[in-house]
Amino acid sequence: MIENTPKLFIPGPTEVDDRVRIAMAQRVIGHRTKEMTELYGGIVEKMQKLFNTDHYVFVFTSSGSAVMEGTIRNLAEKDVLHGACGAFSKRWYEMSLANEKNADLVWADWGKAVKPEMIADAMEKKKYELLAQIHNETSTGVKNPTDEIAKIAHENDTLIAIDTVSSLGGDMIDVNKYDVVIASSQKALALPPGLAVAIVSEEAMEKSKKTRNKGYYFDFVRMLKRFEKSQQHPTTPSVPLLYAMDVQLDIMLEEGMQARYERHLKMREIVHNWVKKRGFELFAEKGYESVTVTTITNTYGISIKELNEELVRRGLRISNGYGELKEKTFRIAHMGQLTPTDIMGLLDTIDEILEAKGVY
Amino acid sequence: MIENTPKLFIPGPTEVDDRVRIAMAQRVIGHRTKEMTELYGGIVEKMQKLFNTDHYVFVFTSSGSAVMEGTIRNLAEKDVLHGACGAFSKRWYEMSLANEKNADLVWADWGKAVKPEMIADAMEKKKYELLAQIHNETSTGVKNPTDEIAKIAHENDTLIAIDTVSSLGGDMIDVNKYDVVIASSQKALALPPGLAVAIVSEEAMEKSKKTRNKGYYFDFVRMLKRFEKSQQHPTTPSVPLLYAMDVQLDIMLEEGMQARYERHLKMREIVHNWVKKRGFELFAEKGYESVTVTTITNTYGISIKELNEELVRRGLRISNGYGELKEKTFRIAHMGQLTPTDIMGLLDTIDEILEAKGVY
Repeated sequence: MIENTPKLFIPGPTEVDDRVRIAMAQRVIGHRTKEMTELYGGIVEKMQKLFNTDHYVFVFTSSGSAVMEGTIRNLAEKDVLHGACGAFSKRWYEMSLANEKNADLVWADWGKAVKPEMIADAMEKKKYELLAQIHNETSTGVKNPTDEIAKIAHENDTLIAIDTVSSLGGDMIDVNKYDVVIASSQKALALPPGLAVAIVSEEAMEKSKKTRNKGYYFDFVRMLKRFEKSQQHPTTPSVPLLYAMDVQLDIMLEEGMQARYERHLKMREIVHNWVKKRGFELFAEKGYESVTVTTITNTYGISIKELNEELVRRGLRISNGYGELKEKTFRIAHMGQLTPTDIMGLLDTIDEILEAKGVY
Repeated sequence: MIENTPKLFIPGPTEVDDRVRIAMAQRVIGHRTKEMTELYGGIVEKMQKLFNTDHYVFVFTSSGSAVMEGTIRNLAEKDVLHGACGAFSKRWYEMSLANEKNADLVWADWGKAVKPEMIADAMEKKKYELLAQIHNETSTGVKNPTDEIAKIAHENDTLIAIDTVSSLGGDMIDVNKYDVVIASSQKALALPPGLAVAIVSEEAMEKSKKTRNKGYYFDFVRMLKRFEKSQQHPTTPSVPLLYAMDVQLDIMLEEGMQARYERHLKMREIVHNWVKKRGFELFAEKGYESVTVTTITNTYGISIKELNEELVRRGLRISNGYGELKEKTFRIAHMGQLTPTDIMGLLDTIDEILEAKGVY
């Protein structure tokens, strides 16, 4: 048995409903059976219903990063523009380089959002096949104005893929405005890690059909072909995680995406109010704060590592700042299945620890 | 709850021990914790012990196919030779093409094995960076003489990767003779699908360091760098499947690889004897029969589809022939956690069905 499993207030993996975890323990079925057709076909249908879309839905057995990389290979032979504002969106740019694309970077500084005019400027100078744009930057807690950015991309005949790895299923996103919407299972979708999702437009599919050197495993066209044949995958999918996803989608549909979004807004509000009340500061630029994760400036210079150790002893875990932001910031994820009550309990516990240390 | 979960005698997914399935239902831990370091570090150590190797072990969240593709990108910028003899090894060749490699194909016909001299001939004509060689062809039930083939590859200064997707953990393979040994979780390793393994030599690692355009997610160097730092993954791994793998490796170490191999030989012997006794024929060339899966020629021209439906009603599932071999052959997998008793029960049940139909 795994020991030490605190409640997770980290931006992935997040808390998983008991019913979802237990679903994984079921016996494994063959991936070329009618049971699999029903399972995967049902998952795709539920995803389309939940996100109110007719776009294609593909569920990959991989992390979200892998689908971010795969999306680049599907949609760009050469020229990719990256709209980035933190560690994970910068990594996406590095993925383009690792695949020898001519990648350009529009960089908003740490804590800042990518603005539509920054993208417009870059697109005036050069024609791109694809804009790879961060939606919710997990390292800085910044939400980018992707709706406006998508408009600019499309005006420039450029496809737009957005990284909603840590926001889809928590924040309200109109997936129909984008060509590819990418998400990981273990964030706001509140599944265990091991799956990633791509929601793909007809235009993206047309482009993928013409793209050379796009590889095999993440090829959207190959995924669609097999799905249209039998509502199955070209290769063996992770059966237990599909069991989990099916149950979790039922849970999400029962709550409804609007109620889910409002719950996330409420949790964010509680965290924001606490930040102000205790004299911390929001790291994200005003007006661009993530709905699912708050990055908080460590204004008191406390040891985040020690704070987290204290929290873990009490059965709770938050995140230190990511990379260069370690100890300078800390992160509280308020996403997935967490509730306002969970968040209030966490914040009270942090207060208890910091008050005992005489921080405030 | 998933319904209709017959015992699986198909060449993946295979039967999973209850303890392994139940391990997946545990609470999820963060992937940047010391618990993860212990978990993944322990898995790598157990893999090295089980397969008696100091080679690097990487566990990817993906299907085996994805790591087959990734291996090509790690180890060849241009010239790849494929030793193939069935649907899955041909697919590996197609993966090279999908990644714009100059791929050549040494093709042994359906049911035949790739012979060392065929590889030697091809290597005389051209210098290759990588030989991508099938070990156990899941479609035809053919085991290829990869030890001899590896010798030829190395004499020609060519790296060799072998596809043991459906044999590692069942057949006895000296992984130290190869540069990359690739396996899927859901075959002879008897895990649920969702993970894939690469066992990688120092020489392969050196080559990967120099290879351009190898991508991000499957980059061996990036995997090693993160592992050496913290015994973790560069991106979020599938935590529940790592729980499962840890438990399954304990089960395999307890049995021991030699005993496991002998159990697989015994199961194969039972199937082979039955094939002869009942007037069926082995599809694989004599002397090259797979240790983990037997492909059987449908000499009576029975409906394999109907036979399987009858079996499923009795709680058992075998495989139809793959692709072009559908209905012309059928496949009985004898791998993973199955026992001689399971196999005898299956064969008796097939006899009961076919005798009732008056087939024999």
